[in-house]
Amino acid sequence: MTADPADPAVSAAIRQMRRTVAELHAELVSNGLVVWTSGNVSARVPGTDLLVIKPSGVSYADLTAESMVVCDLTAARVAGELAPSSDTASHAYIYRHMPQVGGVVHTHSRYATAWAARGEPIPCVLTAMADEFGGDIPVGPFAPIGGEEIGRAVVTTLSGHRSSAVLLRSHGVFTVGAAPRDAVKAAVMCEDVAATVHLAVSRGELTPLAQDQIDALYRRYQTEYGQRP
Amino acid sequence: MTADPADPAVSAAIRQMRRTVAELHAELVSNGLVVWTSGNVSARVPGTDLLVIKPSGVSYADLTAESMVVCDLTAARVAGELAPSSDTASHAYIYRHMPQVGGVVHTHSRYATAWAARGEPIPCVLTAMADEFGGDIPVGPFAPIGGEEIGRAVVTTLSGHRSSAVLLRSHGVFTVGAAPRDAVKAAVMCEDVAATVHLAVSRGELTPLAQDQIDALYRRYQTEYGQRP
Amino acid sequence: MTADPADPAVSAAIRQMRRTVAELHAELVSNGLVVWTSGNVSARVPGTDLLVIKPSGVSYADLTAESMVVCDLTAARVAGELAPSSDTASHAYIYRHMPQVGGVVHTHSRYATAWAARGEPIPCVLTAMADEFGGDIPVGPFAPIGGEEIGRAVVTTLSGHRSSAVLLRSHGVFTVGAAPRDAVKAAVMCEDVAATVHLAVSRGELTPLAQDQIDALYRRYQTEYGQRP
Amino acid sequence: MTADPADPAVSAAIRQMRRTVAELHAELVSNGLVVWTSGNVSARVPGTDLLVIKPSGVSYADLTAESMVVCDLTAARVAGELAPSSDTASHAYIYRHMPQVGGVVHTHSRYATAWAARGEPIPCVLTAMADEFGGDIPVGPFAPIGGEEIGRAVVTTLSGHRSSAVLLRSHGVFTVGAAPRDAVKAAVMCEDVAATVHLAVSRGELTPLAQDQIDALYRRYQTEYGQRP
Repeated sequence: MTADPADPAVSAAIRQMRRTVAELHAELVSNGLVVWTSGNVSARVPGTDLLVIKPSGVSYADLTAESMVVCDLTAARVAGELAPSSDTASHAYIYRHMPQVGGVVHTHSRYATAWAARGEPIPCVLTAMADEFGGDIPVGPFAPIGGEEIGRAVVTTLSGHRSSAVLLRSHGVFTVGAAPRDAVKAAVMCEDVAATVHLAVSRGELTPLAQDQIDALYRRYQTEYGQRP
Repeated sequence: MTADPADPAVSAAIRQMRRTVAELHAELVSNGLVVWTSGNVSARVPGTDLLVIKPSGVSYADLTAESMVVCDLTAARVAGELAPSSDTASHAYIYRHMPQVGGVVHTHSRYATAWAARGEPIPCVLTAMADEFGGDIPVGPFAPIGGEEIGRAVVTTLSGHRSSAVLLRSHGVFTVGAAPRDAVKAAVMCEDVAATVHLAVSRGELTPLAQDQIDALYRRYQTEYGQRP
Repeated sequence: MTADPADPAVSAAIRQMRRTVAELHAELVSNGLVVWTSGNVSARVPGTDLLVIKPSGVSYADLTAESMVVCDLTAARVAGELAPSSDTASHAYIYRHMPQVGGVVHTHSRYATAWAARGEPIPCVLTAMADEFGGDIPVGPFAPIGGEEIGRAVVTTLSGHRSSAVLLRSHGVFTVGAAPRDAVKAAVMCEDVAATVHLAVSRGELTPLAQDQIDALYRRYQTEYGQRP
Repeated sequence: MTADPADPAVSAAIRQMRRTVAELHAELVSNGLVVWTSGNVSARVPGTDLLVIKPSGVSYADLTAESMVVCDLTAARVAGELAPSSDTASHAYIYRHMPQVGGVVHTHSRYATAWAARGEPIPCVLTAMADEFGGDIPVGPFAPIGGEEIGRAVVTTLSGHRSSAVLLRSHGVFTVGAAPRDAVKAAVMCEDVAATVHLAVSRGELTPLAQDQIDALYRRYQTEYGQRP
């Protein structure tokens, strides 16, 4: 569907999503996933071909709903006064190729990035990993910054994986979710399990959980955990 | 004793315990034991067959006394509008089998969970461990999430142990206490000693304290430490 | 000098020191040196044979000037309604044997306690260590809790050392200072260098600074650093 | 240009820079780079031969614009009532020899100082390092504290390097920037990558990024990232 920002319903959806995305950046800070200006959140504006994303190089304390940038899915800016994140083309690529995704998060959170620096997947040795990621957290290839190559690496790596997180070689983490808050949750959980497994393997390699245990944990968490309608 | 929630005394006790349990979750956050919605506190309502527990999948910042869920000791909800924690059946199992326990805490705190991932007990190499846990912190078996199997693993593992904390293989930590605040304290101390011993053993294995030293420290801490009536 | 708490000057000095000691505990919390109730600060009341110390087992958030306990140097309580720290006899021992000491701090801060668990002195490989401690941070023997044995271990270990900090084997840290704030600073710096050196030695042993460099750094820091009258 | 502090324009510039430098110290604290009084920020007063720097040994919570010290580039105090940082002569040396530098930061941040303690450069294995530092973070020699030797070590080490950060052997970190906020950013990013690479190399050595990748990342970050006029 082509979105007309002049349409009142689209305009209201954009306004709402700018507020949501601005507020979600505070979760990156309070969960210790970012320093200075080094991570970003974006969201698809529901029912449109638009996304909302952090402006480039702006401090988290200075973010407001108004400073969020609206782009179309070719990464061209359609609203907002600031230049969008230099990862915008990659976020847009993900939204174009993963229609089920409504939110994307990128961070350099320390423990997850340490696994990414080694190009080593995080093995599924914890129930919390089976719950949230349904298996290992995979590693995607190194890709240059600024174009859509990172987006392509994310989409390719997540194909055929349950994981909502991908480690980008020598770089950091991307996570996706049905809603932007889900992607933020995945970024928080990714760093948490990256840290725990880092500590765990310091005294020797671990055996991953059995596949049937992982399957049972994942199914339960995705269908029973939390508040259901 | 069967509790009638319509009895004013029972009703007052429930109200009080909902407030206490809601507030204690803030200690999990401020002590860095949890991220997102990954841990929970419960309490027995004194003199009844009821427990109060966190609702499933709700953020710590959104918890109120009213949102706490009241269940009987078969884990059936008797009051509250939200679905209870998916660990409720295990909490209930613990209250049924450990009458001296008035509070239970579950977390995935990082250092303790790293020991749990390896299935390695934390050796008693610190006076703080002898004080609080009276020896090693033991490891219980892997158990699936959602039923009472985790509760059974906790009860079995703590039988014949002084420890108020148990590491659940590939999962996390459960702690118990006479009152819910005691269980929270045990969760805080468990993570603290898990971290310190993790750092300590990074340069080689350590010799545990002698049993008579552990016994003397534990006895003193349990009978003389703190404010006594 | 024997102090009469009824003497208005003594009474004012006690009141002032209770406030100071209560406030300094907040530094232990904000600097991440303690969890729950696991560390304490004491101070000598200047010009008297009295000390002010934390009550046993009371949460840091609940400390007030009034809740601080006043004891004489035999560790007998002379004012205050709560039971004093179970380390009081050891603090008193230190004040009796180290007349230049006006403040004592005890913590189980994680990195320093990890060195203590191994019984390994922290080698002087950083200018910050030479500045503050004038050399290695030494290790004292294991001593039981509750009596004055820990105090004796501290005094013995610090004899002939410039260090204001001592690691107590399998236990934690004691620091001393001319004023209680100096002892708190030493506790903060001890944990900071314990952490940094822990990280540094993870990739191989380090060569300590040369003695003449240590001497020059220590002399400068003790005589030139900061604001001088 | 010789600056006359009585000139209203110079006086206004000094006043502004004292406020800026006082405020930037809060970033050292909130980013966890310092404890007690162990790091400092300075700034060149634009268009003058003056610098503004932290007073020696004063707590971060007590810093005000008025307490900042103004010195000339021989490190002689020209305004302010407190003694300047004992690193002032080294800051002044850097401003004299690096005219493009408008701000200097010194910390003992833990991970970076651990690399400094070993005398080991931080290898450029992360895109974030290529972005900000354009390659490895180099190590300078040990130098005594109090004179300008540290400044000389910084200037010498950074010659021919893109890096805005230098690790001083057995000591800590110095960073430089066009403006003081840039130097603070470099200090924050230096600690962040020092931590991430420390974690990454714990399971084996890593291969640095290829030089052409580093060049491309650095060029893009320095010319395209953030908001441009």
